[in-house]
Amino acid sequence: MDRALLALGLLMALPAAADEGMWTYDAFPVETVSKAHGFTPTQEWLDKVRLGSVRLAGGCSASFVSPEGLVMTNHHCIRGCIEDLSSPKEDLLAKGFLARTPAQERRCPKVEANQLVKMTDVTARMNAATKGLTGAAFNTALKKEMSAVESACATSTDVRCDVVTLFNGGKYHLYEYRRFQDVRLVFAPEFSMAAFGGDPDNFNFPRFGYDVAFMRVWKDNAPAKSPDYLPWAKEGAKDGDLVFVSGHPGGTDRKATVAELEFQRDVNLPYMLMMLSEMRGKMKEFAASSPERYRTTRSKLRAVENGLKALRGRHQALADPSLLSQKRQEEADLRQRVEANPQVKAATEGAWEETAKALDAYRRMLPDYRMKEGGDAFGSELFGIARQLVRVAEEQPKPNAERLREYTEAQLPSLRQQLLRSAPIALDLDEAQLAFGLGRLRETLGADDPFVRQVLGTESPEGLARALVRGTKLGDVKTRQALLEGGKAAVEASKDPMLLFARKVDAEARAVRKRYEDTVEAVLKRNGERLAQARLAVYGTSGYPDATFTLRLNAGQVKGWEENGRSVAALTTFGGAYARHTGKDPFKLPDSWLKARGKVPDATPFDMATTNDIIGGNSGSPMVNRDGRVVGLVFDGNLHSLGGRYGYVPETNRAVAVHGDGILAALEHVYGAGQVARELRAASEVPASPAR
Amino acid sequence: MDRALLALGLLMALPAAADEGMWTYDAFPVETVSKAHGFTPTQEWLDKVRLGSVRLAGGCSASFVSPEGLVMTNHHCIRGCIEDLSSPKEDLLAKGFLARTPAQERRCPKVEANQLVKMTDVTARMNAATKGLTGAAFNTALKKEMSAVESACATSTDVRCDVVTLFNGGKYHLYEYRRFQDVRLVFAPEFSMAAFGGDPDNFNFPRFGYDVAFMRVWKDNAPAKSPDYLPWAKEGAKDGDLVFVSGHPGGTDRKATVAELEFQRDVNLPYMLMMLSEMRGKMKEFAASSPERYRTTRSKLRAVENGLKALRGRHQALADPSLLSQKRQEEADLRQRVEANPQVKAATEGAWEETAKALDAYRRMLPDYRMKEGGDAFGSELFGIARQLVRVAEEQPKPNAERLREYTEAQLPSLRQQLLRSAPIALDLDEAQLAFGLGRLRETLGADDPFVRQVLGTESPEGLARALVRGTKLGDVKTRQALLEGGKAAVEASKDPMLLFARKVDAEARAVRKRYEDTVEAVLKRNGERLAQARLAVYGTSGYPDATFTLRLNAGQVKGWEENGRSVAALTTFGGAYARHTGKDPFKLPDSWLKARGKVPDATPFDMATTNDIIGGNSGSPMVNRDGRVVGLVFDGNLHSLGGRYGYVPETNRAVAVHGDGILAALEHVYGAGQVARELRAASEVPASPAR
Repeated sequence: MDRALLALGLLMALPAAADEGMWTYDAFPVETVSKAHGFTPTQEWLDKVRLGSVRLAGGCSASFVSPEGLVMTNHHCIRGCIEDLSSPKEDLLAKGFLARTPAQERRCPKVEANQLVKMTDVTARMNAATKGLTGAAFNTALKKEMSAVESACATSTDVRCDVVTLFNGGKYHLYEYRRFQDVRLVFAPEFSMAAFGGDPDNFNFPRFGYDVAFMRVWKDNAPAKSPDYLPWAKEGAKDGDLVFVSGHPGGTDRKATVAELEFQRDVNLPYMLMMLSEMRGKMKEFAASSPERYRTTRSKLRAVENGLKALRGRHQALADPSLLSQKRQEEADLRQRVEANPQVKAATEGAWEETAKALDAYRRMLPDYRMKEGGDAFGSELFGIARQLVRVAEEQPKPNAERLREYTEAQLPSLRQQLLRSAPIALDLDEAQLAFGLGRLRETLGADDPFVRQVLGTESPEGLARALVRGTKLGDVKTRQALLEGGKAAVEASKDPMLLFARKVDAEARAVRKRYEDTVEAVLKRNGERLAQARLAVYGTSGYPDATFTLRLNAGQVKGWEENGRSVAALTTFGGAYARHTGKDPFKLPDSWLKARGKVPDATPFDMATTNDIIGGNSGSPMVNRDGRVVGLVFDGNLHSLGGRYGYVPETNRAVAVHGDGILAALEHVYGAGQVARELRAASEVPASPAR
Repeated sequence: MDRALLALGLLMALPAAADEGMWTYDAFPVETVSKAHGFTPTQEWLDKVRLGSVRLAGGCSASFVSPEGLVMTNHHCIRGCIEDLSSPKEDLLAKGFLARTPAQERRCPKVEANQLVKMTDVTARMNAATKGLTGAAFNTALKKEMSAVESACATSTDVRCDVVTLFNGGKYHLYEYRRFQDVRLVFAPEFSMAAFGGDPDNFNFPRFGYDVAFMRVWKDNAPAKSPDYLPWAKEGAKDGDLVFVSGHPGGTDRKATVAELEFQRDVNLPYMLMMLSEMRGKMKEFAASSPERYRTTRSKLRAVENGLKALRGRHQALADPSLLSQKRQEEADLRQRVEANPQVKAATEGAWEETAKALDAYRRMLPDYRMKEGGDAFGSELFGIARQLVRVAEEQPKPNAERLREYTEAQLPSLRQQLLRSAPIALDLDEAQLAFGLGRLRETLGADDPFVRQVLGTESPEGLARALVRGTKLGDVKTRQALLEGGKAAVEASKDPMLLFARKVDAEARAVRKRYEDTVEAVLKRNGERLAQARLAVYGTSGYPDATFTLRLNAGQVKGWEENGRSVAALTTFGGAYARHTGKDPFKLPDSWLKARGKVPDATPFDMATTNDIIGGNSGSPMVNRDGRVVGLVFDGNLHSLGGRYGYVPETNRAVAVHGDGILAALEHVYGAGQVARELRAASEVPASPAR
């Protein structure tokens, strides 16, 4: 090995920055944290914080904060629920919500909460099932085995079992959750306060968002017991304090190959950014055209804007040549080491080349896949329901292991909950979304594409969207229930136009999905696994796995940063929020805050920045101190944290949280939500970590 | 030199594909064309075609097609004029226009036509002026010398003189044009027919667009004489025919460095694509909200959609790894040869590195530059007028060579015409555009940015846009005239809110422009020049220069192509257009066509695909046969031609034109525009090229 490579090798061997890492609870780097922060979490501490952590199945994090099932999360994590509970007459999203008694708590139609109770390594079983297989066969065998394992584990609808992928397939674990589907809204502030500063302040700091909500899990028509909860801290977090974040980061690509990162930079992210940009322009104008349209659109618009900004941050990180140059260096080092180890070399043969080839195929397939089957296909909620009804009828009769993954037994309770939600669907908006989707279909594949001709005939996107959305009865929950329970016969007998439409396009959608899964997904997955094993073999240590919306723990500290020579302080205050009020949306404080002015001292901490390594999905994560007590509620990251998808930069990457003191102060003095504050305070009177 | 490099060298030395190349008239590759097509254009032939070619200063091409000043171009090139001549009561864009007598011809408020009469090499003069200079000094000296040369040449407002850059600064030529500012509309079809197939068919083929318009240049209140015109062909073009395109391709980057291409792929194009996507979404929804909004928005929307699709095509070409890999190979070869030649090596020292460094600076500066000074800054037409008035007042008193480039004497006639145009400005749309621009400013630079605070104060983007657009009188041409003629004193005395606003932001906008010009533009320009000279030195031949909206000639042939194994025919027919009619926009033929059904034989050629190497700016170019007679009118390229920005691929790159036969047939049998057809036919009775 020459000197340059030796130097490179040394570089690779350097420990990750102290606060970097989204660690699974079974492999938390206790010693590193102890060394960096002078605090050594015990196993009891870890178990307690883990069990106090909650996952919201829709894509957020949360925590138990009282023994009576009280759950804390972000307002933006349950904005959909608040919207579902609203009507033209009662706009809860605008005015907020407070249940003064348990009886007043209102059930969220679509929220499912999960508590992680057990993790089991099932890597050997998965590897045995896929041994010697490649391509589609590998993928099929893997999915089949996952479904089998999950099926055997899920003994009731109260138990949710997911086989989760860690280290890009280097390991597979079975995660067993307690499942709560009766989740009720307790408290929500006004949307304008939760999202104070709107899109301009999103991912920025200093920040003044009160992105807070409380819910309660119920069981058998009574508040559920939650003995494992996180008590409130006696003292608020201060600049420099050690803080832990326990939550569910949705996804990172820190171990991705250079080819995968280039694919993101050149193909996938530009595609998504254009789609979201256009949708944003359209929705903003749509929302501005009437108060009712504003009411039904604002929440989805905010989600689109949030996604757009997040993906733009990712794209900018990849567009900075320094990031990819570092990734190229790391990959070169890995390849060098693999090359030097005959056994690993043999096992890794062709892995990079196959990955690049699959991505090249994906590049050419992407428009087809996204238009017919991907997440944004057709773009309509009612179409999505129709497709689910068509597919559940088709899939349910099949043996569990042979179904499409999202229709396996383990997934059915969530699916059922989604399909039978009572929430109203805004037809006006859905029609606009479907017209948008159909228009994109035609312009992406071309007016002469056979599928486009099959879909549109001589209709315009707007005309077809109108006919389908105005003609369907799927907005009615009873209709959906009848179709869901009637199974295939009911679906085939239905003359509902949206259902007929979903049936018409299904063969082609399934075909492109199969092409994608067999020639792209399967290849990326198998080679991701092989490269993960190679990394393990040559570096000897696995580090932390890329995020996969599984529970992770991370240590950090309350800390500002330097931005272009200007220093950004770690904490903002109530006084700052009043100073930022301009009276114009999105910098307009709601009346509740204007009325409460002076009741909370100006210096009271409001939001804070910390070095915790988080990413989308961590929203709603509890932030706890060394006593395992709540000192904050993560709701965002700064712009630099968006590049965290690919790597953590300790100097600038910051999590953004509502400060625990601020949460309590506003509950008590702005919202008159004394009973919530009292429940939190009462719960904090027990010892934090009984084992200590 | 080892074998691999030798092979690479041979590859580089291969001649360009026969039809590749946007050649200046003074260096047309007569021999190559003769060898490939068996036809040798004479100097007389070249002069005649050149003088028959017309440039529309707004960014299109055209041609003289009669000795009485009749000009042919695309409908989409003068859509702005047709819109300017429309009103809520008389929607010419929707219904088309036909002047039955010269007196009925209506003057286009903003159109300027140019005829290239002389080209002079001024490279030595430019090089002498910049000798030994770098950075800002280089840039300043270059611009100063350009302005001086132009000033000396432009002896009257009938003469337009531009120093144009060729070979990225390898050469500079002085182009002298005859200038026509009185250009009148003679004939335009319906927008729905010019753009038949709308955005879905744009850049696609088979195609059925009648993107045709005729205008006439006037002089001293009478039709101008145009003895050098292109007569109509006696026989229409057939599959396989040799055809020439003479026009003004706007810009290519075929000689760009890899760093510049990566910058486009990673930074500039994604930025533009997001901006245009969002604007498209917004404008579509805006246009759909009322018939009057539709009327005032559709043309700009079409331009946005066209730009979006063109840039997306470019981005996709760069996202295909094969293109950049070829460019890397070419650059490696050039560097290798430079390295091997001590003299060239010394002259090129650091050129690639300085280019990359300037682009890195630009990447960080781009949001600031585009938000404050770039083409899309603020986004409002009225703001644009205000800025021009503020700047012309500031610049005009300065010596010509020290002014901002767009305010030099040579530019003033066009600027004056723009500012004093009589066309109405839709306030509703302009307010929406300004709100969009101000919103983007805030979200791009952040609510805490000092400039953003200076601009918005405590106002919302919507509120400020409303106040400025509703408060300004700049929509009134008399107000503009008074300010233009009143100069600095009048501008400084004005209390017009938009003018005050433009003055308020001007210092900061000029500052970022200066930063950009000194640290980015100047460095890219000087090093582009050095690399162009190096290329010339080591390869010995210059090939054709990248397009710069200067007149170019190109040979090609009428030819279809293979698309995914399916063959696309070169010609479409009138029958095909009727078959494509669905009755739903954008596939709805206008009434004129439905009524004329059967009057033109179904087999009559309509549009055609040719191998000509064209790019945006070539719209409106005449397509002539070997007799120098008109056989078609270029109006588009296929999707593959969009990658032509970076390289010409003979197998798939196609120009799209309206067929000459189709133009005449529709004039006579659909539009009853017999007198236009008669003028064309009469003009075709003279010998095509008098010198032959």
